[in-house]
Amino acid sequence: MSKKLTSRAEDYSKWYNELVVKADLAENSAVRGCMVIKPYGYAIWEKMQAELDRMFKETGHQNAYFPLFVPKSLFEAEEKNAEGFAKECAVVTHYRLQNDPDKPGKLRVDPEARLEEELVVRPTSEAIIWNTYKNWIQSYRDLPILVNQWANVVRWEMRTRLFLRTAEFLWQEGHTAHATEAEAIEETKLMNNVYATFVENFMAIPVIQGVKTESERFAGAVDTYCIEALMQDGKALQAGTSHFLGQNFAKAFDVKYANKEGKQDYVWATSWGVSTRLMGALIMTHSDDNGLVLPPNLAPYQVVIVPIYRNDEQFEAISKVAEDIISDLRDRSISVKFDKRDTLRPGAKFAQHELQGVPLRIAIGPKDLENETVELARRDTLSKQTVILDRISVVIEDLLEEIQESLFKRALDYRNNHITKVDDFDSFKKVLETKGGFISAHWDGTNETEDKIKELTKATIRCIPLESESEDGVCVYSGNPSKGRVLFAKAY
Amino acid sequence: MSKKLTSRAEDYSKWYNELVVKADLAENSAVRGCMVIKPYGYAIWEKMQAELDRMFKETGHQNAYFPLFVPKSLFEAEEKNAEGFAKECAVVTHYRLQNDPDKPGKLRVDPEARLEEELVVRPTSEAIIWNTYKNWIQSYRDLPILVNQWANVVRWEMRTRLFLRTAEFLWQEGHTAHATEAEAIEETKLMNNVYATFVENFMAIPVIQGVKTESERFAGAVDTYCIEALMQDGKALQAGTSHFLGQNFAKAFDVKYANKEGKQDYVWATSWGVSTRLMGALIMTHSDDNGLVLPPNLAPYQVVIVPIYRNDEQFEAISKVAEDIISDLRDRSISVKFDKRDTLRPGAKFAQHELQGVPLRIAIGPKDLENETVELARRDTLSKQTVILDRISVVIEDLLEEIQESLFKRALDYRNNHITKVDDFDSFKKVLETKGGFISAHWDGTNETEDKIKELTKATIRCIPLESESEDGVCVYSGNPSKGRVLFAKAY
Ligand SMILES: [Zn+2]
Ligand SMILES: [Zn+2]
Repeated sequence: MSKKLTSRAEDYSKWYNELVVKADLAENSAVRGCMVIKPYGYAIWEKMQAELDRMFKETGHQNAYFPLFVPKSLFEAEEKNAEGFAKECAVVTHYRLQNDPDKPGKLRVDPEARLEEELVVRPTSEAIIWNTYKNWIQSYRDLPILVNQWANVVRWEMRTRLFLRTAEFLWQEGHTAHATEAEAIEETKLMNNVYATFVENFMAIPVIQGVKTESERFAGAVDTYCIEALMQDGKALQAGTSHFLGQNFAKAFDVKYANKEGKQDYVWATSWGVSTRLMGALIMTHSDDNGLVLPPNLAPYQVVIVPIYRNDEQFEAISKVAEDIISDLRDRSISVKFDKRDTLRPGAKFAQHELQGVPLRIAIGPKDLENETVELARRDTLSKQTVILDRISVVIEDLLEEIQESLFKRALDYRNNHITKVDDFDSFKKVLETKGGFISAHWDGTNETEDKIKELTKATIRCIPLESESEDGVCVYSGNPSKGRVLFAKAY
Repeated sequence: MSKKLTSRAEDYSKWYNELVVKADLAENSAVRGCMVIKPYGYAIWEKMQAELDRMFKETGHQNAYFPLFVPKSLFEAEEKNAEGFAKECAVVTHYRLQNDPDKPGKLRVDPEARLEEELVVRPTSEAIIWNTYKNWIQSYRDLPILVNQWANVVRWEMRTRLFLRTAEFLWQEGHTAHATEAEAIEETKLMNNVYATFVENFMAIPVIQGVKTESERFAGAVDTYCIEALMQDGKALQAGTSHFLGQNFAKAFDVKYANKEGKQDYVWATSWGVSTRLMGALIMTHSDDNGLVLPPNLAPYQVVIVPIYRNDEQFEAISKVAEDIISDLRDRSISVKFDKRDTLRPGAKFAQHELQGVPLRIAIGPKDLENETVELARRDTLSKQTVILDRISVVIEDLLEEIQESLFKRALDYRNNHITKVDDFDSFKKVLETKGGFISAHWDGTNETEDKIKELTKATIRCIPLESESEDGVCVYSGNPSKGRVLFAKAY
């Protein structure tokens, strides 16, 4: 397989698909719409998990695990939620295979082993979890419940793309229960904030926090908060959502608690999640025509050392220098890999590490040994410098920090340059087709206008930003009065 | 719910079930045979995961993720494996629900949305993984592949018990590919060793390493290595298995590689796994009639501090002392919880922490403030001592180590006292029914004898121990010649 990628300018979508496969992040599997996450891709996901998990625990949450399957009768209990997911449910109907009498050596579903009640493979776990919480909650003393689950979920999507939209994906889903509406709303906002902090500081992806319109809301939610990012092709990507569920699930599953005065009331709920979709956001925010570009925080190894040698003696001398560097870097908690494979030439190694986005590459050759220097290359800028051996670990420590910040800055500049205020529908369409990005425009607040704009332009309202000022104006489409701007974009 | 457990002597099985629920480890769910792992139980599982994951990585393995579903045609490719699991497969046949025309507000499976090929919910992932490895392997340069997956699997069991046997469970499954038979066998043994080290050193559970007989082997394996533990009721529990798969899966999925000379050969395979079943082993090895007993390595918190006070002033003075202790313990990487709930009395807190197996409990009352002491209670021995405040963190650090060792020692003594050499079948039956435990006896090496013994006594051959000496003898059942002893037991 050629390592050369299609360029983004040539075909952005093709570039993405090729990059995911060639950088060894993921690939399609034998199961329609399901991906295999390869070790290198999974190592990045593990870094995200570790940091998110730390942040969840720091904000008082604990992990638990609930069943993969949801009995149909529970699944349909919260009507809007059921309606929202019914069309994409994988359903288990049988619990046994048997030898196929017509085809020796083949199996078939045992017709006698039909389940009395079908089981839905969870597309999300509100139903099974609230059916469980019912038994955990009697009084205010049992609240709040602050639980998170790391799990796989299945949504039978027709058009799938690696990481961005897959039939099975990995995610975390927080499900909390509260005594008061105010507390649940506070939790919803807190977790949206945790997501924003994580995505910005850890993944170096700038996001806009906002609230979804009714039509973009999670099925079963009263309010959906979200973080929206902007990809390099000018399309938006919803990177995480946090839902205030009101008392919808408590009512569907009859979950009440007694307050301090002994009065019974339904419990208030939130749920919030991010998924392996974040991998897609990561790739499409930072990468370039040479491949993946990783923020140092997410790199499975932050530094790679490539030896350049003609004989064993040189290799050994270089290895000695490399081992010293490795030990110094590890003391600074910098992860480093010494690429001493003898099956690949240095040029091929350079190409692979570039494709896989290793933030810094050290090359050490015979000349470097003489001069007590190494060659240091930055993946993000593709620039090289010669560094004195004595200073290498200090230089690297500083550079890793600089790269992390500079990737964020670059993405932020791009994002800020691609929020365009628009006040008439012709400009709206023109900006959308030429420049892309977010369009900040007035909207009259109706579903009809939102639908019409989507139908005409494919742009949806990504969110009503939390930090928007109220500003009187008229709707960009209908001309009806509006109290403020919302953000439109085409989206993944 | 009463906190008082049924005693082990009264009804061991009932004691276990009650303990799992009352100690907040897990509970049954609305889905037949599937459990909910509650936060306290999940926190213990997380500790196991973290340590195992570290050990896997230290031995050169990487994590990846493969699909939950296995298309039926792949599932049936390796015949023995398919045959072994066919009877317990949950099968997805449809990918959509729709409104039930006969029952308003209810859903039904959409008969139009039948899958062309049924999908098996993975009971184990050899099939889907070897179908993937096929594309990853061309030459010896691509080998070995050392991959592990943390995942949920489903085996439709008819009689389920929390942790020990559930329809869905959590596990890790390693799947490796090698160029030579010798290397694959070495890997199989290495990972069995990793499991033994983990279970003994980290979980304080002594195990015997051995090899399974043909009838107890993993479906599709050439050899199954295992670690066997002994529970307090004299029944054995298989705590982990590591399989040498030969070229069975490589042949079923046509996975060949070119060696250095360019010659094609099938790839050699291993797989190995441990699961949430380990939670069952943990509970049944160390716990007592008062509840869970946790080795310090696995305790979500190793120390709990309970304040005993009559007024706010006392509470504040005690809190100050507690905060100092907490800070000292955290400096020593000891996890500690300050139980300052004002909804429970100290006695109720003591009972809860005892039930939940917290290794050490500190109580601080007004008298302690005066004397600059605290009361320190050990969960494993239920003994108490008064400790001078100045020495508390040193004492605790030492004690935690001592508890970890003493739990192992206690379990090892019990285990060693329950391996009985037996040379005739009457003694075999008598020892099995009275003393229980492992019976070390000669076996003639045939399936028939093994089956017959199982039929007559319910005892199975747990393993042929790796460390057994060859010893000529005659089979305890058939009287036919035997080259060595094997271990029989009734088992979970
Ligand atoms: Zn632009
Ligand atoms: Zn005994």
